[in-house]
Amino acid sequence: MIFRTATRQDLPAVLALLADEEKVVDPASVVIDEAYERAFEAITGDSRNEMLVLADDDGAVLGCLQATYIPGLGKHGAERALIEAVRVRADRRGAGLGRELFERAVERARQRGCALVQLTSNKRRTEAHRFYASLGFARSHDGFKLAL
Amino acid sequence: MIFRTATRQDLPAVLALLADEEKVVDPASVVIDEAYERAFEAITGDSRNEMLVLADDDGAVLGCLQATYIPGLGKHGAERALIEAVRVRADRRGAGLGRELFERAVERARQRGCALVQLTSNKRRTEAHRFYASLGFARSHDGFKLAL
Repeated sequence: MIFRTATRQDLPAVLALLADEEKVVDPASVVIDEAYERAFEAITGDSRNEMLVLADDDGAVLGCLQATYIPGLGKHGAERALIEAVRVRADRRGAGLGRELFERAVERARQRGCALVQLTSNKRRTEAHRFYASLGFARSHDGFKLAL
Repeated sequence: MIFRTATRQDLPAVLALLADEEKVVDPASVVIDEAYERAFEAITGDSRNEMLVLADDDGAVLGCLQATYIPGLGKHGAERALIEAVRVRADRRGAGLGRELFERAVERARQRGCALVQLTSNKRRTEAHRFYASLGFARSHDGFKLAL
């Protein structure tokens, strides 16, 4: 299993993971328009954003997450890592891939000097909540969203 | 009331707001060490981070919040705005300053093209939750934190 930052070659597979959580989407079927190209360049070209992927030995992307490293004045000026867009391919769940991806992302944040890792999860996703609790995360906050 | 991005001159007042939510801290009493200087430069020098302040006509900082604009592949490649470090000076609460600060920050995110504004609030802060609900935010998520 290979853990690394995503390259442009991984974009179809990452978009396939994000397109449908419940079934496997063929990366070849994903339409990549200019908006997706721009967004991917914005992530990979920014020193405070990373798309991290877990790939098998054949290069197939089985999981992904985005990490954003946020500078701040709390925690005596330490960065915090925000994790978004966590996905494991539907046919490969329950085999510890999510845990491996997360543990590596947390270790990466620690090495960078982050004081905190944070994320939000929809209140309906109780299975995900057990997973985050098992990784040591405290469900201390409510997450608010306003669509624009 | 002036709404603007913070400058280095505002740093003592912003740190005073962050130091204690319950009482007014004299900005002149705040010790600004190298870690705070570095963190403030990281925020103000980054095109995806802003420290926004509300100041009175004499320049006194009465409220602050940090906005982080996060590129992503969800929402068809639109940015999302994350809001952190929201404070209104203890002796000026209940007069609508928080609402003004928030409405302006949301408008700024909208003008930038963000698809979403998000934040987390400690589960004990039920008064803050009513405030965010009154601004149209949905409390749809749980917020998880892992201290490193």
